[in-house]
Amino acid sequence: MENKKIIKRSVDFAKWYTSIISEANLIEYGLVKGTMIFKPYSWSIWTNIQDILNSYFKEMGIENCSMPLFIPYSEFLKEAKHIEGFAPELFKVTEIGEKRIEDPYVIRPTSEIMFCHYFSKNILSYNDLPLILNQWSNVFRVEKNTRPFLRNSEFFWQEQHGIFSNEKEALDFTKKMINLYKKFIEEYLCIPVLMGKKTEYERFAGADETFTVEAIMQDGQALQCGTSHYLNQNFSKKFNIKFQNKSNQFEYGYQNSAGVSTRLIGAIIMSHSDDNGLVLPPKIAPVQIKINSLFADKSIEVKNFCKELSTNLSQKFNVKIDDTDKSIGFKLSEGEVSGIPIQINIGPKDLENGSLALVYRHDRSKEILNIKDVDINFIEKKLDLISKELYKKAKENLDKRIVEVSTLADFNENISLGNFVSAFWSGTEEDEKKLKETTGASSRCISDETKQGVCFFTGKKTNLKVFFARAY
Amino acid sequence: MENKKIIKRSVDFAKWYTSIISEANLIEYGLVKGTMIFKPYSWSIWTNIQDILNSYFKEMGIENCSMPLFIPYSEFLKEAKHIEGFAPELFKVTEIGEKRIEDPYVIRPTSEIMFCHYFSKNILSYNDLPLILNQWSNVFRVEKNTRPFLRNSEFFWQEQHGIFSNEKEALDFTKKMINLYKKFIEEYLCIPVLMGKKTEYERFAGADETFTVEAIMQDGQALQCGTSHYLNQNFSKKFNIKFQNKSNQFEYGYQNSAGVSTRLIGAIIMSHSDDNGLVLPPKIAPVQIKINSLFADKSIEVKNFCKELSTNLSQKFNVKIDDTDKSIGFKLSEGEVSGIPIQINIGPKDLENGSLALVYRHDRSKEILNIKDVDINFIEKKLDLISKELYKKAKENLDKRIVEVSTLADFNENISLGNFVSAFWSGTEEDEKKLKETTGASSRCISDETKQGVCFFTGKKTNLKVFFARAY
Repeated sequence: MENKKIIKRSVDFAKWYTSIISEANLIEYGLVKGTMIFKPYSWSIWTNIQDILNSYFKEMGIENCSMPLFIPYSEFLKEAKHIEGFAPELFKVTEIGEKRIEDPYVIRPTSEIMFCHYFSKNILSYNDLPLILNQWSNVFRVEKNTRPFLRNSEFFWQEQHGIFSNEKEALDFTKKMINLYKKFIEEYLCIPVLMGKKTEYERFAGADETFTVEAIMQDGQALQCGTSHYLNQNFSKKFNIKFQNKSNQFEYGYQNSAGVSTRLIGAIIMSHSDDNGLVLPPKIAPVQIKINSLFADKSIEVKNFCKELSTNLSQKFNVKIDDTDKSIGFKLSEGEVSGIPIQINIGPKDLENGSLALVYRHDRSKEILNIKDVDINFIEKKLDLISKELYKKAKENLDKRIVEVSTLADFNENISLGNFVSAFWSGTEEDEKKLKETTGASSRCISDETKQGVCFFTGKKTNLKVFFARAY
Repeated sequence: MENKKIIKRSVDFAKWYTSIISEANLIEYGLVKGTMIFKPYSWSIWTNIQDILNSYFKEMGIENCSMPLFIPYSEFLKEAKHIEGFAPELFKVTEIGEKRIEDPYVIRPTSEIMFCHYFSKNILSYNDLPLILNQWSNVFRVEKNTRPFLRNSEFFWQEQHGIFSNEKEALDFTKKMINLYKKFIEEYLCIPVLMGKKTEYERFAGADETFTVEAIMQDGQALQCGTSHYLNQNFSKKFNIKFQNKSNQFEYGYQNSAGVSTRLIGAIIMSHSDDNGLVLPPKIAPVQIKINSLFADKSIEVKNFCKELSTNLSQKFNVKIDDTDKSIGFKLSEGEVSGIPIQINIGPKDLENGSLALVYRHDRSKEILNIKDVDINFIEKKLDLISKELYKKAKENLDKRIVEVSTLADFNENISLGNFVSAFWSGTEEDEKKLKETTGASSRCISDETKQGVCFFTGKKTNLKVFFARAY
């Protein structure tokens, strides 16, 4: 049973995206422009992401904490580059009750300043280092054109902030974080990414280096999935964060910061979903298995068997029983729109035949199996296979879109085709700005390749190779 | 080794409270008045509380979601009583970047309005009911006198909002929530509470009934630990939340809401802690067992044994090894100030003797045991016993402070003694207001007792009995 409310990708990819979001019950809009209500289904995807990352954070010695939402505007003016980067995007509290306040409160666009304040008060000597913290929170940025999960005035993220006693440790940890993001996004979200440094122009305001993981969506637009910044002493100098080093001298700390956000949910949708609805990677799916019972109201055997199967599989997976009196077609299509990896249909006939019909979301295939074969072990293997197949399909999309170009004409053509263009680059920040304005393409990350070539834009020799694409 | 920085309770209870908070590394102040940084230790207490309540919420069919922080001020004006209750306490965003906005955004003091908005869009028929949601979030209220965990401009809580198809279901669920809070606070936080209805004067703005759980702190002041509100159709009528009932007529939904907040951490501190530092209930302690290794640097046996013991106990408990080169006295006192339920000292001599020294925080007792006896089973029993003993001690404080009075003189005397006064009451809201202004005591909850008596304030006959106390 096809869901007519879902727009076809080929007709209008943007409309398809928003139709998936509403049909799969992910989002309801808030009352203020650019704000969203996370319905239980999307919030549960986000909390699954949190749980997985938290387990890695624990292994890495990252401790969770919580910073205040309000930051005095005056504090923002301390880090020039930082404020430059954020000024136009700030929400400001200027009234308390009916009273106006002198120094407005900025609603955090990020908590760099608060972490710096914290570090300055909690670090005395090298014994206190490294101090590696993280916060899961809502952050706020004014957005002209908002889009669920991708651009919202309020969104959720994790921001990890670490302070170290030397450059190497800080830089190593910066890389450790971007590698964790790559692993997480590829293994758990089944989305292949390109990993690399940002160009100076695309770098985070206040960072010496920004590392990024970039994915390509089904429409050929890139999506930045996570970033890790090496801040060196830029913030510690501005916020006077000193520690006494082993030779008893006061030294400014070396910092990093890194984060991923609810944008990841947008990446999941645009990487895997199809014209029939959402497709969720098994490892973060709120419901991994939906048991559609048929005539459960009439057949006590069916009702009991569903309960039994659910109890058994629930030991390891998120299982949901649908024993409403809706038609089987309706039940299947609900499960399909919601992107549930595996649906199992169970009716009186199936029990007679001792067989079950399994329906797989990722390739819409169907399989009839003996009841006894459908156990935890089978489901586990199947879900792993589904993850691999989702990744493989997304990887094919990425690979076929990576195109090397050497002329501006080729560049323009491939960008408009929705490709991930790799090219030698020796342009200035000005050039990059101009290129973005004229072609809509931005540099996503620097390639590891080191051989020399000629910049397609300036014609100069260079050994810098950069990936460009239109991006969300 | 005594921590001199901790003020004695007998000297100044308020200063004792704040000294515990700083010495136990719970809080760092934010940059805006009334905001706090939750250090990893206190944040981990809060996340433990979240995990436990979430498991109960799941059983009760409560789904987590997330509402936007911003609410248009105009929406607030819809529910007169509601705005009346909050107006002076609101933070308002009036500037975006440098631009002023027409309809300011209120920073949520609660999300009633957003949940109502959500319900109005997601409820069509009785089939959609009950719909029971919850959100874990930060909320904001302007506070003149702020105090960590107890009164903060920004604090964290859970707010559960349910909508039902009839009065009975809604009221039953309202009671179910307050009973859950009682169970949780008594069993997990080891704090005994009085449970009952609020008087009309103390009721939540917009509710028909407010149920509360009230605890008494060591200084005799009451602390409201959680509330559950029966909202009837008050909000559904204001926000036009209708559903089609079984007889196909449109009917306004029946709502409840309930919540507990980071105040609970304040309650934990003031219920159990002593002049030596924090005392944490085992079930929510971030570190349940601290292993203090002695000369681990010199003795590889000690190092290995600590590792082994920790690995073993970590299967079931939160264990931390302290193998720094600090002195044993220093290690013990750090563990004591942090309120870690059990500390285990391990040095070369202990291994020779095959014995271990265990130190218990709640009663500061010490016990020497054979190594082989210190296993998961022993620790489990011990932690349960500690929980029971903490509860018992707090219960004794509660019981001895509950005093029945029949005259205003007795009332005044017992209130100033820091007692939980029980008295017959027939006063008006005005009387209650006056009583609060003159004695500093507020009505905490209504007693279940139904026998008749004479109101100590009005002299009138009544069968309403109320608990009064000074409260945080």
